[in-house]
Amino acid sequence: MKTVGIRDVAKLAGVSVTTVSHVLNETPHTRVAEETKNRVREAARSLGYGPNRVAQALRTRRSGLIGLLSEEIATTPHAGRIILGAQEAARAHGLTLVIVNAERGNHAEAHRAEVQALIDRQVDAVLYATMYHREISLPSNLSGLPAVLIDATDGTGRLPSVVPDEVGGAVAAVRHLAEAGHRRIAFLNNDDDVPATRGRLTGYRQVLAEHGIPYEEELVGESASEPADGYELAKGVLGRARPTALFCYNDRMAMGAYRAARELGLSIPEDLSIVGFDNQEIIAANLAPGLTTVALPHYEMGAWALETAAEMLTGGNDQPVGPFEPLLLPCPLVVRESVAPPRRP
Amino acid sequence: MKTVGIRDVAKLAGVSVTTVSHVLNETPHTRVAEETKNRVREAARSLGYGPNRVAQALRTRRSGLIGLLSEEIATTPHAGRIILGAQEAARAHGLTLVIVNAERGNHAEAHRAEVQALIDRQVDAVLYATMYHREISLPSNLSGLPAVLIDATDGTGRLPSVVPDEVGGAVAAVRHLAEAGHRRIAFLNNDDDVPATRGRLTGYRQVLAEHGIPYEEELVGESASEPADGYELAKGVLGRARPTALFCYNDRMAMGAYRAARELGLSIPEDLSIVGFDNQEIIAANLAPGLTTVALPHYEMGAWALETAAEMLTGGNDQPVGPFEPLLLPCPLVVRESVAPPRRP
Repeated sequence: MKTVGIRDVAKLAGVSVTTVSHVLNETPHTRVAEETKNRVREAARSLGYGPNRVAQALRTRRSGLIGLLSEEIATTPHAGRIILGAQEAARAHGLTLVIVNAERGNHAEAHRAEVQALIDRQVDAVLYATMYHREISLPSNLSGLPAVLIDATDGTGRLPSVVPDEVGGAVAAVRHLAEAGHRRIAFLNNDDDVPATRGRLTGYRQVLAEHGIPYEEELVGESASEPADGYELAKGVLGRARPTALFCYNDRMAMGAYRAARELGLSIPEDLSIVGFDNQEIIAANLAPGLTTVALPHYEMGAWALETAAEMLTGGNDQPVGPFEPLLLPCPLVVRESVAPPRRP
Repeated sequence: MKTVGIRDVAKLAGVSVTTVSHVLNETPHTRVAEETKNRVREAARSLGYGPNRVAQALRTRRSGLIGLLSEEIATTPHAGRIILGAQEAARAHGLTLVIVNAERGNHAEAHRAEVQALIDRQVDAVLYATMYHREISLPSNLSGLPAVLIDATDGTGRLPSVVPDEVGGAVAAVRHLAEAGHRRIAFLNNDDDVPATRGRLTGYRQVLAEHGIPYEEELVGESASEPADGYELAKGVLGRARPTALFCYNDRMAMGAYRAARELGLSIPEDLSIVGFDNQEIIAANLAPGLTTVALPHYEMGAWALETAAEMLTGGNDQPVGPFEPLLLPCPLVVRESVAPPRRP
């Protein structure tokens, strides 16, 4: 492979190698005419010659690489949005994202090996993303360098972290139903002991209280959160408690609830309104009718985490001292066609 | 940030800095006892000290970085599988994947800026992945370094490339239906002029011929490939031609076909068998009944591309001379519950 060198750039631009070096490395206190600078940059661009970041890294002891450890890249669409958000922010800062996939893992040292792979690569900082909102214990080797948590908190508040505002998202969803006139609103919840389960229940109860609607146990069910579980739970609650609306823990459960409604001869939204959570497009946009749901801020969390890491690095404040409060990002309502006023309000 | 240095490792292992350097860099022709080597490696591991890859890169003129340009990371689950395949292969070779997202783009220079970003990072090679099987024109700046195409061909055969065996996948799908006894098999095809459209039609016709089933125009429809399109197409063909089975261009169209069948009072698979394509899990596994479909080899394509790039680099053969024939990887059938023998064979 023939590599384009600084000599080629100098030749094409008609200047000395030193001038090229000064221009491309933006060496301070050197005087080069703006017109010459442009000529050098244009020559470098046309030849595909970039600043020697490897040499730069040795000089500054910075690699310009930010590691993103993400669980389950291949099985959840959420990881893609986090990656995109972090990557676009990285580009704006002239940083490069190195991504490492990890299996989902709950024990403290589960991701030790992946963190080590990033350290070996001499990343300047690590963004650590779980595949859903979780409280985690951090692998011990993460303590040696700047790090930011995405969709996770570690209890100690030792690291900056960003998570979805679960309560606020549920409030938006249930308020949308209450404001359409519904008072018998069932909640099909997940049964894992995770922040989303607790936060969405809190939001649900909060809106009921706001609207003077009593909380009824028979309107709330809990199970695993796949379509088959949503189907079973919906059949149960529709049979026993005659709600006019369902708030589902996620879009996958809502998908099952659609099937249950269909089998019971209930039209959506005329006989039954449904709101989901996640805005998992392939489901929410393609169910018939389209599912009104709540979006998770994955892109925004990825971007925020990168910005926060970049700030630590440029501020020379690599290890700011916590404890940090997790930043809550809003979960906005996405309105489609699955909500209408109840037949008998 | 306190960085762990080679001196810390030497001290912990009780050896000289030179010995640590020899062991960790695997310097040839140096004699260190196996037991000492293990002690050094263990010390390095426990301190989180890695080989200095930056210095290494300057020495070898290799960065150890492989760039992966992938379209639409955030909107398709396919990108995740390609990333995972490439990344696991990269790890096996001690290489690191740097991922850049690109918007979908069809004109030749669409991804020029993204390729340049990777060149600026001094990647040793580029893997270039499109979001679905396409014939593309390559950005001109891709010609300066080793590159491999994933899910794409460039017509000239200048670069190694890997794509799904569209014909073989369709043959597997339609043969599964024919072997269950179906003879009136409709094909809901996509209407874009892309390799998948043409290849899957070829496979469909091939199986009909194998089984002595005449090709009937009224059993074949074409449209865009979203669920709403599959719904319309399925309603049309079920109304006019009474097929006992549908082969759908993708799982999204099959999702629409399920809805059409339901509205016409047809049970799947008792009254109508359906096979999809893509194995998009969130749809295929969650439709009721589960959709039998054909899997695309995204993981395998990512892994193959990385292996091919690694071979070019280690073989010292950075720019092998084409033309290359695209490698076709198999698309295996994934059997769920949507196929049964026809009521009247």
